[in-house]
Amino acid sequence: MRTAYQEQLQRLNTILGDMCELAGAAMSRATRALLQADLALAEGVIADHDRMNALATQAEEQAFAVLALQAPVAGDLRGVVSAFQIVGDVDRMGALALHVAKVARRRHPAKALPEEVNGYFAEMGRLAIALAHNAREVLNSLDHEAAARLQEDDDAMDDLHRHLFTVLMDRDWDHGVAAAVDVTLLGRYYERFADHAVMVGRRVFFQATGKLPEQFEDAS
Amino acid sequence: MRTAYQEQLQRLNTILGDMCELAGAAMSRATRALLQADLALAEGVIADHDRMNALATQAEEQAFAVLALQAPVAGDLRGVVSAFQIVGDVDRMGALALHVAKVARRRHPAKALPEEVNGYFAEMGRLAIALAHNAREVLNSLDHEAAARLQEDDDAMDDLHRHLFTVLMDRDWDHGVAAAVDVTLLGRYYERFADHAVMVGRRVFFQATGKLPEQFEDAS
Repeated sequence: MRTAYQEQLQRLNTILGDMCELAGAAMSRATRALLQADLALAEGVIADHDRMNALATQAEEQAFAVLALQAPVAGDLRGVVSAFQIVGDVDRMGALALHVAKVARRRHPAKALPEEVNGYFAEMGRLAIALAHNAREVLNSLDHEAAARLQEDDDAMDDLHRHLFTVLMDRDWDHGVAAAVDVTLLGRYYERFADHAVMVGRRVFFQATGKLPEQFEDAS
Repeated sequence: MRTAYQEQLQRLNTILGDMCELAGAAMSRATRALLQADLALAEGVIADHDRMNALATQAEEQAFAVLALQAPVAGDLRGVVSAFQIVGDVDRMGALALHVAKVARRRHPAKALPEEVNGYFAEMGRLAIALAHNAREVLNSLDHEAAARLQEDDDAMDDLHRHLFTVLMDRDWDHGVAAAVDVTLLGRYYERFADHAVMVGRRVFFQATGKLPEQFEDAS
């Protein structure tokens, strides 16, 4: 039988999962805005950012309610505290999608990206959206193996990010410094988005097992 | 008379303050390593980073002890939860100092920075160190007015960061794309370091007043 504590924690994780989905949807639209120089899409991401703040407040209130009403101890207490940390991570994912949208808006009607790096950003966008989606899934399932797998998508993101730098550093780069600065910052936004999704996975792993992935391997 | 809760919270804030001082010291050495292409200093920052992780673990354990032993309610509960969030912020400040040191190491024996931006980074380093120091001070004093003033140093950092971009975007920039990429990322590391210090100030403000700075002004 599920305890009242478990039910409240599940409700909390549902809100956190909704935040992840919102961050993923924002990154999806921001990436299209970036690739297609679509001002309306960029403006939409910027206008909708308040919804993320509202969900973050709701998640924190729910977490305080669990702490205050259930007075969890030991592992349960750590689970609730990790929820506050997840709010911080997902909030940041939303802020990074917002940054991408703002670059697209700033460069409109021009495209921020030179044609030759479009493919990198299309793929980094795809990975970011998948990571946000998978973060939501594991928040709902508390499946610790799936939570640990978020690291693999992040490894793919890191690879892309490294390749992007080799394109930038190539002597044939003829798009100037301004485009290089945009590409550098945009690459960093996607990479950090993925890092935060991985952190969500690590915290869910901890909620589910009481250990971090590397401690779990040590112990098994 | 101070309660056991207040004493434990003060002990917790002392550890958080030590983390801030460590982050500031790391940024101080990383900045010198960057400006002078000093490999030993850069290696020192990288080798010492484990101390930050150790302090972060210690702070989280102390925060769990306060939660478990004192079972604080309402405002007190929010104060302890904010301590976990401060751990996250200061931990990130340490990671950003580490990033700066790694750029210095990667470019050694060359200097990562073209001469003309040295002054910007010397000043951004000074501001970052001041912010880390002031974050420690307010963690110890719980002086909410001093905590709100961290925002002012961050405004100075944002100004510098904006000016740095005008130098990069200038048609006279003749240091190539690779140096522009380094300067872009390094500028971002200092700016984010400052943002996290401001977040510490906001959370201390909240611990001291039960409100965020903007809510406090609304109410007064």
